[in-house]
Amino acid sequence: MTRNRAPEPTISEFVDGLRSGNRQLLSKAITLVESSRPEHESMAHAILDSCISPGSSSTIRIGITGAPGAGKSTLIETLGLEIVRQGKRVAVLAIDPSSSRSRGSILGDKSRMEKLSAHSDAFIRPSASSGYLGGTSPRTHETILLCEAAGYEVILVETVGVGQSEIVVNSMVDFILLLILPGSGDDLQGIKRGIMEIADMVAVNKADSGRRTLAEISKADAESALRLLPEKHPGWNRKVMLTSALEDEGISELWSTILHFSETMRNNGVWETQRREQLRLLLYTIVEDRLKREFYSHPAVKGIKHSIENQVLSGSLSPFSGALKLLEAFVGKS
Amino acid sequence: MTRNRAPEPTISEFVDGLRSGNRQLLSKAITLVESSRPEHESMAHAILDSCISPGSSSTIRIGITGAPGAGKSTLIETLGLEIVRQGKRVAVLAIDPSSSRSRGSILGDKSRMEKLSAHSDAFIRPSASSGYLGGTSPRTHETILLCEAAGYEVILVETVGVGQSEIVVNSMVDFILLLILPGSGDDLQGIKRGIMEIADMVAVNKADSGRRTLAEISKADAESALRLLPEKHPGWNRKVMLTSALEDEGISELWSTILHFSETMRNNGVWETQRREQLRLLLYTIVEDRLKREFYSHPAVKGIKHSIENQVLSGSLSPFSGALKLLEAFVGKS
Repeated sequence: MTRNRAPEPTISEFVDGLRSGNRQLLSKAITLVESSRPEHESMAHAILDSCISPGSSSTIRIGITGAPGAGKSTLIETLGLEIVRQGKRVAVLAIDPSSSRSRGSILGDKSRMEKLSAHSDAFIRPSASSGYLGGTSPRTHETILLCEAAGYEVILVETVGVGQSEIVVNSMVDFILLLILPGSGDDLQGIKRGIMEIADMVAVNKADSGRRTLAEISKADAESALRLLPEKHPGWNRKVMLTSALEDEGISELWSTILHFSETMRNNGVWETQRREQLRLLLYTIVEDRLKREFYSHPAVKGIKHSIENQVLSGSLSPFSGALKLLEAFVGKS
Repeated sequence: MTRNRAPEPTISEFVDGLRSGNRQLLSKAITLVESSRPEHESMAHAILDSCISPGSSSTIRIGITGAPGAGKSTLIETLGLEIVRQGKRVAVLAIDPSSSRSRGSILGDKSRMEKLSAHSDAFIRPSASSGYLGGTSPRTHETILLCEAAGYEVILVETVGVGQSEIVVNSMVDFILLLILPGSGDDLQGIKRGIMEIADMVAVNKADSGRRTLAEISKADAESALRLLPEKHPGWNRKVMLTSALEDEGISELWSTILHFSETMRNNGVWETQRREQLRLLLYTIVEDRLKREFYSHPAVKGIKHSIENQVLSGSLSPFSGALKLLEAFVGKS
């Protein structure tokens, strides 16, 4: 908390900066969004208020998931380079299901995506560990909105395939790509099924020439697994592809499939419906985050919180009656 | 919702019934706990208020986790039978990380634990799908308290190893056992690490005579994985055991290890500290659940919710300003 640093830009400076694609200000705005300090959050929201475009957007938000080692970052870099090659600006974010004890970002340092991060049409934001256990936080959604305001047309959101974070990413992206490895057999099925359900496409990654046969088997496995699942979006037949970022195999096909998905879903209205659903969810996530903050910062609550907690911990008051007393303090006196 | 059914028991009937170990009333009380209807919840809490014993409890709460197919239910049955053989009453519950789209209980029908469910000192409660995505709900914790009130001294909580549900079970049990399979190699490491962190013990299950060598290798793998992790509880060295429910191998060792853990942790105070921490967490989970309900059922909120939501979805209002308006309605007028 050094005091003598340069003054924070004003909201309009942020807005102008974002509109002109200023990366420094975009990063600064994302930091505000990720901050836990109320004044930062209000500022971030004020910026977003004047940034986000009403109505349906022309951007494409893609969630990319898979178990550790599935080759997510390499594929993201190759796909990102393909996207910028086609003249679109791409932003890469990560949802970090930071474990309860150890923390750490997925993307890690940008050097894992050297070529892409050096590109003028790409923006890479390693995630700050949220500590939200897979992120019930709306932060990533807000970061997506900021990137779009800064003119990034394709947003790639990396998430690790542990189940919970997919549910979160599913609530803020248009398309979910699941990466699996050649020969990754049935052991992961239990975990994969939950993720398969929300995948719009599966790629057997690292399907390098050497492991083609194995990859073909995994492809068949994944296809039969998908057949058992209910359709996710009407009018979309979930495919399984073979990709090799290393040999730049299947990457452009991957991108054109995503474009085809986007076109199909925009035409049948699914795209807009899903975006609206996600916006509704964001609204209530923000409401509930703020509500909790109002509650815990309320004088009447702060006044008795400590003693209620002690009574509960000493066993002289049940957690249920304790909860009621705290709520009465809040509802009664606010 | 049939109207002409037998009248609900009164709170004191519930309390007396639980104290006398009446299974029907225990099941009924758990159903109240799991109900989403406010009046049911209040009744459940009133029952718990007069049931739960203040101060530290002599019960043992054990979380048992592992990937699908790790043999959780067979091990739980064998362990449960060992526990009742030693004269303790055991209750088996499940945390169901019901996926976003498909639902379904882990324990499924009791027939998976035929012998144990037939035993007079055992109570088995298949979980109702919570839909809480791995359960941020306090319901399981409340169910544990009900079972303890009904005189069950050992509570076994089954959970599937997908990451999130372990965090939840970790917030309500004293001991966590992770089951892995012989030969379950490094592929799961990424997922396992997060779970390993909260495991107090790892069992290589299905270590039947035929797969001993493979099991020994997995044991060594798990041991080295554990060595890399920070200690979970001071004074407890996390062990890896070989178990075979099929051949009743290692089950009694498993139980005596748990008893040894319990004794050690009670003596060094960790047990009590963890229980208090869990009680604190339960208090605030209940508070926040109730707070949300108060909010959404508040007249002023209900009055504008629909129009705010429409403005947000039509893009004429940002979700951030929309959230503020809803909060002002609640805080301002309650």
